[in-house]
Amino acid sequence: MDKMNLTMLTDFYELTMANGYLQNGLKDKIAYFDMFFRKVPDNGGFAIMAGVEQLIQYLKNLSFDDEDIEYLQSKKLFSEEFLLYLKDFKFSCDVWAVPEGTPIFPNEPVITVSGPVIEAQFIETMVLLTINHQSLIATKSNRIVRAAQGRDVMEFGSRRAQGYDGAIYGARAAYIGGCVGTACTIAERDFDIPVIGTMAHSWIQMFSTELEAFRAYAMVYPENCTFLVDTYNVLKSGIPNAIKVFNEEIVPRGFRPKGIRIDSGDITYLSKEARRMLDEAGFQDCRIVASNSLDEFIIRDILMQGAQVDLFGVGERLITSKSEPVFGGVYKLVAVEKNGEIVPKIKLSENVGKITNPGFKNTWRLFDKETGKAIADVLTTNEETIDENKPYELFDPEYTWKRKTVTNFYAKRLLTKIFDKGTCVYESPKLKVIKSYCKEQIDTLWDEVKRFENPHKYYVDLSKPLWEMKERLLQEYSVK
Amino acid sequence: MDKMNLTMLTDFYELTMANGYLQNGLKDKIAYFDMFFRKVPDNGGFAIMAGVEQLIQYLKNLSFDDEDIEYLQSKKLFSEEFLLYLKDFKFSCDVWAVPEGTPIFPNEPVITVSGPVIEAQFIETMVLLTINHQSLIATKSNRIVRAAQGRDVMEFGSRRAQGYDGAIYGARAAYIGGCVGTACTIAERDFDIPVIGTMAHSWIQMFSTELEAFRAYAMVYPENCTFLVDTYNVLKSGIPNAIKVFNEEIVPRGFRPKGIRIDSGDITYLSKEARRMLDEAGFQDCRIVASNSLDEFIIRDILMQGAQVDLFGVGERLITSKSEPVFGGVYKLVAVEKNGEIVPKIKLSENVGKITNPGFKNTWRLFDKETGKAIADVLTTNEETIDENKPYELFDPEYTWKRKTVTNFYAKRLLTKIFDKGTCVYESPKLKVIKSYCKEQIDTLWDEVKRFENPHKYYVDLSKPLWEMKERLLQEYSVK
Repeated sequence: MDKMNLTMLTDFYELTMANGYLQNGLKDKIAYFDMFFRKVPDNGGFAIMAGVEQLIQYLKNLSFDDEDIEYLQSKKLFSEEFLLYLKDFKFSCDVWAVPEGTPIFPNEPVITVSGPVIEAQFIETMVLLTINHQSLIATKSNRIVRAAQGRDVMEFGSRRAQGYDGAIYGARAAYIGGCVGTACTIAERDFDIPVIGTMAHSWIQMFSTELEAFRAYAMVYPENCTFLVDTYNVLKSGIPNAIKVFNEEIVPRGFRPKGIRIDSGDITYLSKEARRMLDEAGFQDCRIVASNSLDEFIIRDILMQGAQVDLFGVGERLITSKSEPVFGGVYKLVAVEKNGEIVPKIKLSENVGKITNPGFKNTWRLFDKETGKAIADVLTTNEETIDENKPYELFDPEYTWKRKTVTNFYAKRLLTKIFDKGTCVYESPKLKVIKSYCKEQIDTLWDEVKRFENPHKYYVDLSKPLWEMKERLLQEYSVK
Repeated sequence: MDKMNLTMLTDFYELTMANGYLQNGLKDKIAYFDMFFRKVPDNGGFAIMAGVEQLIQYLKNLSFDDEDIEYLQSKKLFSEEFLLYLKDFKFSCDVWAVPEGTPIFPNEPVITVSGPVIEAQFIETMVLLTINHQSLIATKSNRIVRAAQGRDVMEFGSRRAQGYDGAIYGARAAYIGGCVGTACTIAERDFDIPVIGTMAHSWIQMFSTELEAFRAYAMVYPENCTFLVDTYNVLKSGIPNAIKVFNEEIVPRGFRPKGIRIDSGDITYLSKEARRMLDEAGFQDCRIVASNSLDEFIIRDILMQGAQVDLFGVGERLITSKSEPVFGGVYKLVAVEKNGEIVPKIKLSENVGKITNPGFKNTWRLFDKETGKAIADVLTTNEETIDENKPYELFDPEYTWKRKTVTNFYAKRLLTKIFDKGTCVYESPKLKVIKSYCKEQIDTLWDEVKRFENPHKYYVDLSKPLWEMKERLLQEYSVK
């Protein structure tokens, strides 16, 4: 998985445009692109950045091999000059990214790319595909993990993922978002994400009786006994048989963890009854695992009803972000260089929400020095800095009379340089580090922003110079 | 992409069970598993089988390499004997599959596997992942294509796919379902799916004016002119500029196709106006392409309103099957061999709909000889055949008094053998052939089954012997 040449996983128009730029003498024209998104999935208050490590791998391996060139040649659409250019292609852009695990908000750049327009344009499809997918799953995972209120959540969705990478990188993103592990074996081998798994219904069915099946499992894994108890009847058969085997000599007395898993029926009722039966039998610390079509809403509801679940196994609704399976990141031209000067560009739209923030920018997050909480994000032009020693006036870019002056804050730049003229200058942290950074950063958000429904809208404001630049361009480009 | 060793892309419990079976002396026990699904996505009347070719590739390459074994050894959970077994692992099962492109219905086996239980169980995750993903997208693609009523539909979703394979195999499945092509370049290189693409908004923005941008494009691709007309204003700027350039010497007079693409705003209104303007300018055959958050419902509605669109580019709502992004196929043990005899197995559930159809089975599709239309599917035990020369009595497995006798029919077995004792005995047809087979087979369904909402429920019945076997097992296994 180290080497990943997905160069031809690109929308065809990236190639027609590339050849077009070359033919129009724009090969060395420097362009600036931003990736940003417009709406948090599930109407949540924030999303979580993920996928930067895979984006880096892609950019490091970006090259056109003979097979690619031959294929393109066969299209009889591209100039000989262009095919030669691709043969010697070397990525030379600057790239900035918001680090993985960072909470991110609509309309702020999460990736910025600058460099020769052919290159900066060409990578669009893979930038979006990579960041959209993993950010989607990390964001959903975090919702589910927060619903579980400190109980463990495992990712169980490989069989329902949208393709192989959907399962593998989905498990990675779910771990960043807060899952404690996965059922996807390859994700432990390659990313060191803790993996668990014990038995399916078929294991039970392979033996003459459920009791015999549990016993056979306990013989092989005396220290890894989580029995699936719903093949025949949870309360009349599964739990009594599990207790019987827990009481036999096979399972070392006092050994932890022991567990049972319920995969169907009413989890609230069954888990309460199961808890009572296990407690009465002296297995107060036998963990109850539940795993049937769960998501953040069902988990929240059954916990409110007193469900006795210690670990949630979440499958299809996590690995596909079922309730909203698209992270709508876009990649837009924001500036070009002309005679060494950076000229901002804007894209208009009849839909006001689709108008872009122009220019080469920085994103800053302001934190309250006293509480440590995030106050707002501010987009500025690239030349600006925010002076922490002076009061800073925020204003709403739409309702400009809404103003707020912040003091006693510190400001953090969100975008980190990951490529400098095509050379990678950033080392991805270990996944565990990303995961705890994510938790830490989410702790800087107010609870109001974390509500599942109708969360408080976190401020993403424009600096005065950026706002003025945007207004000027709107005047200039709008068709009368 | 020929070699695909995704052996460790498996739920971890497949491995714990495998080692458990070995330790319990069940290594050579022959088991039978069915993959089937319970509900058509989007409440549709049928789904489309897809992914068999990739499943074959996976099974052909199934082996545990040193890295896999080392990793498993490091878990300190598996016996030495098991690790040695994996080192010499050779897939030896029989596998049957419903051919790609076939309409499929709930509760009928679409894959059947028989062989040593360790092997037949182990492949569960990849069987489901592969078939679930591609069947999901093929099914959605077909809905969208049917909504377009003969107009072309292209798959444009790579950037919003759930991972790289989601984009690549999604493009493949979308093509099977009826899309005429894709924007995903690698899908043409590797699967020969027609690819198209011209320009993004950034192309327009790279030039001083829209007119200049169109002209620059036409200079390079005089015979591939589809202009994106909504960067500034479709009717006041985009269309007039497109017409201007179409009228210039650059674009060969009379050359087809020419086109314009609208990617925002109200497609119905804009496309009608665009059509009028293009017609008046003498470009009656300039194609109008639309591509903004489309799906089967929006396409149906805007066509009802008279939208003048010739080609639909469909992105995120197709490539993720956004309205229902999960194809819920499951893989269940249905029989084991005991002293050379096939003993059927059943899985009970408090949820009646989750009870499995037991035994080693066949699926038959009965067609009316006169109309060529599909009448019903019938599951039988493997020993049965359906005699086309005699009247055949169908009955509802739930409401057994509902009966219907069919005559003048022919019966087709749906499951085809693809592996015989581990050797592949099936050659996947070319993708184009699968695509036209799919169209042909869908034509055998009554229109009532094809409704988007509340379709007629196609019959999937059990033969009398199979129904009696199931009743017997229900009696035997239900916990009193």
